[in-house]
Amino acid sequence: MTNQELMTEVIALAREKMLAGEGGPFGAIITRDGDIIARGWNRVTSLNDPTAHAEIVCIRAACTALQSFDLSGCELFVNCEPCPMCLAAAYWAKLARIVYGADQQDAAAIGFADAAIFTELTRDAGQRSLPMQQIMAQEARSGMRLWLEMEQKTPY
Amino acid sequence: MTNQELMTEVIALAREKMLAGEGGPFGAIITRDGDIIARGWNRVTSLNDPTAHAEIVCIRAACTALQSFDLSGCELFVNCEPCPMCLAAAYWAKLARIVYGADQQDAAAIGFADAAIFTELTRDAGQRSLPMQQIMAQEARSGMRLWLEMEQKTPY
Repeated sequence: MTNQELMTEVIALAREKMLAGEGGPFGAIITRDGDIIARGWNRVTSLNDPTAHAEIVCIRAACTALQSFDLSGCELFVNCEPCPMCLAAAYWAKLARIVYGADQQDAAAIGFADAAIFTELTRDAGQRSLPMQQIMAQEARSGMRLWLEMEQKTPY
Repeated sequence: MTNQELMTEVIALAREKMLAGEGGPFGAIITRDGDIIARGWNRVTSLNDPTAHAEIVCIRAACTALQSFDLSGCELFVNCEPCPMCLAAAYWAKLARIVYGADQQDAAAIGFADAAIFTELTRDAGQRSLPMQQIMAQEARSGMRLWLEMEQKTPY
């Protein structure tokens, strides 16, 4: 399938699931070697899950399909530029490329906070609208360093 | 429970689940009015889910417990500063406050990409290591604008 065919399908999927009451107007497809391996759509309100953005749902489905947490070589098609949560998830999943339609300003124009959250993330912790407080750094750090000493582990 | 008691429990949870082979050394607790309503821990490798960070797992559990996608007033305790995926998820979930232990540099010191992904997200799309391409913006935008016209919908 061409990029345009895949994007056309994503736009139709987003519309269908929005009209079905699943959540916001967002859809996603992940491909490997040009074949579709997973579809996802926004399910925030229908699942009561604020993390159930189309991309997150689709990444999880693709990982289930491949039985792997590593989507190296796979490509993500979305009808709107990923929000910071989904873009960071794309990095963790090691996706090879993202093809998107509308952008974060278009999302803002229909009432979504993607652009605002991008701005928040670029601020120093003390300047964000969501208060963050650091405590017990030394104890936390000591615990985390056990990871380095573990012999039987799966790195990711 | 005090902040210190909650952080002590999170550090212990992170250690316990890491040693059990669930995933990386990260744990989370969400409280409401001082009571624990959900726990989460990293399950990336055991679930084959790159989005299964402690905070995401915990946010989903808290939302299931409250039957809501809105965690306004709730607080997140984590043994390490949230990565961009999890921090953005905290905004989407409308969490009131984050208390964390170690920071993203500590995560980098044990081999995790949190700080690197933060840097990627602050770059313009064209400068990122993950290639992004925009196509069919007009068609995608038109589809998304149907959201504004939908009368029976649940805003989030």
